[in-house]
Amino acid sequence: MLNSIPSFTRLVSELAKFPGIGNKTATRLAFFLLRQPEAETEALASALLDLKRRTRFCSVCFHITEEDPCQICTDKGRDDTLICVVEDPQALLAIERSRSFKGRYHVLHGALSPLDGIGPADLKVAPLIRRLEQGTIQEMLIATNFTVEGDATALYLAKLTQHLGIKLTRLAYGIPMGSELEYVDEATVNRAVEGRREL
Amino acid sequence: MLNSIPSFTRLVSELAKFPGIGNKTATRLAFFLLRQPEAETEALASALLDLKRRTRFCSVCFHITEEDPCQICTDKGRDDTLICVVEDPQALLAIERSRSFKGRYHVLHGALSPLDGIGPADLKVAPLIRRLEQGTIQEMLIATNFTVEGDATALYLAKLTQHLGIKLTRLAYGIPMGSELEYVDEATVNRAVEGRREL
Repeated sequence: MLNSIPSFTRLVSELAKFPGIGNKTATRLAFFLLRQPEAETEALASALLDLKRRTRFCSVCFHITEEDPCQICTDKGRDDTLICVVEDPQALLAIERSRSFKGRYHVLHGALSPLDGIGPADLKVAPLIRRLEQGTIQEMLIATNFTVEGDATALYLAKLTQHLGIKLTRLAYGIPMGSELEYVDEATVNRAVEGRREL
Repeated sequence: MLNSIPSFTRLVSELAKFPGIGNKTATRLAFFLLRQPEAETEALASALLDLKRRTRFCSVCFHITEEDPCQICTDKGRDDTLICVVEDPQALLAIERSRSFKGRYHVLHGALSPLDGIGPADLKVAPLIRRLEQGTIQEMLIATNFTVEGDATALYLAKLTQHLGIKLTRLAYGIPMGSELEYVDEATVNRAVEGRREL
């Protein structure tokens, strides 16, 4: 009988595209929206459209931002000699939350994964090398995830930048194996940044 | 650092208004949207707006619909002498899925709950009485939920319609299909024994 309400079924199928949200949850969410005042739904719809219209990736570090360059890249209080390389904006935010790192960042937007056909050209590797070649950076903290792909990416970057004579570090163990940084608690991330070791 | 991306934090707080979705899940969903093509986000936003613009409640049975009266109310193949009263559209859909009922429906949009300040005037009770008074309906199946509020609502409707001489029925209590008796709660077994039927 839901077939007779196309706008309802369409919303359910759109909501079910979210990761971790199946058809039943999507239906529950749609019924919830149905009971909300129209202004609430409009606020959500406009927030959705705004996200895409207003945010972009910083042309320097590739973090999400509304202004280019982003607030981290333009922050004069940060250490220009130190750069932290992460897989995604979520990982950057996890490190920021730990308040243990005061350098610059570089977001790769992924990790090497030959099985998924993701090579260096699919990541923001080339802009990273250009930043390193400018000569200001003295230490690169490779904070890719502690997964097979993250470790492979760290190793790849280490080899690729060997000739630049930059000190390479990796987050200290203490972060559970196989974790994604986004879900690690702040205190653990803090310890891991403080105890970073030379690669 | 998310504070510097107002459109992102706004979307997260909008998504976190959904029942069962907290801040962490909302952030995950927002990051997922960030990686999707803009067309996907626009499809979701337009589906949201459409839901509110196109759907309304049927003026006869108060089920959600895009046409008024709804397809169930205008279906000539249904039994006009039989009406099923439910708390919400979800319950109506559950009964439709069972393919066991071929009469009309009436959606109350809630159940009596004095503690929450919900009385008969907050439900679609008056339009139900008007439908019953037209004299066509001979049996009313009260399919409110098997909760304190649902039972109270059933009892209230029974008393209210006593004088109309309509046959009142309630969904059978019993053992759910596929259950093992060992794991069914005592109250349900009790009701099932009381309501035992001749084989």
